[in-house]
Amino acid sequence: MYFVTSNEGKYREVKGIANKYGIEVDWLKMEYLEPQGGELEEIARLSAEMLSEKIDEEFFIEDSGLFVEALKGFPGPYSSYVFKTIGNEGILKLMRDAENRRAYFKAVVAYFDGKDVHTFSGKVEGEIAREAKGTEGFGYDPIFLYNGRTFAEMTSEEKNRVSHRRRAFEKFFSWLKEVKKI
Amino acid sequence: MYFVTSNEGKYREVKGIANKYGIEVDWLKMEYLEPQGGELEEIARLSAEMLSEKIDEEFFIEDSGLFVEALKGFPGPYSSYVFKTIGNEGILKLMRDAENRRAYFKAVVAYFDGKDVHTFSGKVEGEIAREAKGTEGFGYDPIFLYNGRTFAEMTSEEKNRVSHRRRAFEKFFSWLKEVKKI
Repeated sequence: MYFVTSNEGKYREVKGIANKYGIEVDWLKMEYLEPQGGELEEIARLSAEMLSEKIDEEFFIEDSGLFVEALKGFPGPYSSYVFKTIGNEGILKLMRDAENRRAYFKAVVAYFDGKDVHTFSGKVEGEIAREAKGTEGFGYDPIFLYNGRTFAEMTSEEKNRVSHRRRAFEKFFSWLKEVKKI
Repeated sequence: MYFVTSNEGKYREVKGIANKYGIEVDWLKMEYLEPQGGELEEIARLSAEMLSEKIDEEFFIEDSGLFVEALKGFPGPYSSYVFKTIGNEGILKLMRDAENRRAYFKAVVAYFDGKDVHTFSGKVEGEIAREAKGTEGFGYDPIFLYNGRTFAEMTSEEKNRVSHRRRAFEKFFSWLKEVKKI
């Protein structure tokens, strides 16, 4: 089964999880169209539907984002663009005077089984730190506090035990094993 | 010819400009898919191409955004989402200590002539104000300084004389008159 992504780090992380379920994942390195607007689930579903016009075989994609409560869910579905422009420093500025620091990471997997698209999501709740800390991981990890430490202060093993991506993929792979008897 | 937009204010503004060129514009009120990623031109072009699979007749769409130099172009193509979440207050926070306050509004029109898509763009350069001022207009107008006043401190007539949207549509309509002999 193909994992369509242009991000090698993501592919490696997911391959590791798949291995535990005895599922073979191949990397199909390509960019694809993601629509604007709507929730993460809708974006992933629509992206997979459009992509299914080009790929005949089974495949899945993954989309994720950081959702900050005090910022009405910003940066949400546009987390990647926002990271590239204003970055962690920008999020910290926006949150400078905010009392409510609740935030979550969410990941959605959209799987095309050759006929239909199915989605699976995973979430991890935490807080936006007062300052960036740690050097592990990537993206918003240095400002995302989980149980007193930022994701960037954890080893990849510790983070992967609780991450949104891990949770979404475990749902997906368990479902595959049970429902699809793969 | 159809102007496809879900925004009535935009439709009225454009109808006014079209009238001066003796061009009849009808409102096709619908939402359509906009892709993520890329420049405004590419987004508008792709949106029009996808939409042309659903609409047989000639139509055009318009997409616009605010691009702030010190924020690497943010909020750019996602201006509408960013406005709904962090708003003008968010942009002012991000710009609190910024010396370089240069910014521009840009609009792109994508026109489907029944066969191909053509794009036309317009830009207006200004600065991000230190605080929001004025009550006219909408969106980022209260924080966009042009010649000493914000867009929200100008009458709609004054603003429309210099706006990015006006400039894009004038290019489009002049081209239509000359090249297409409409």
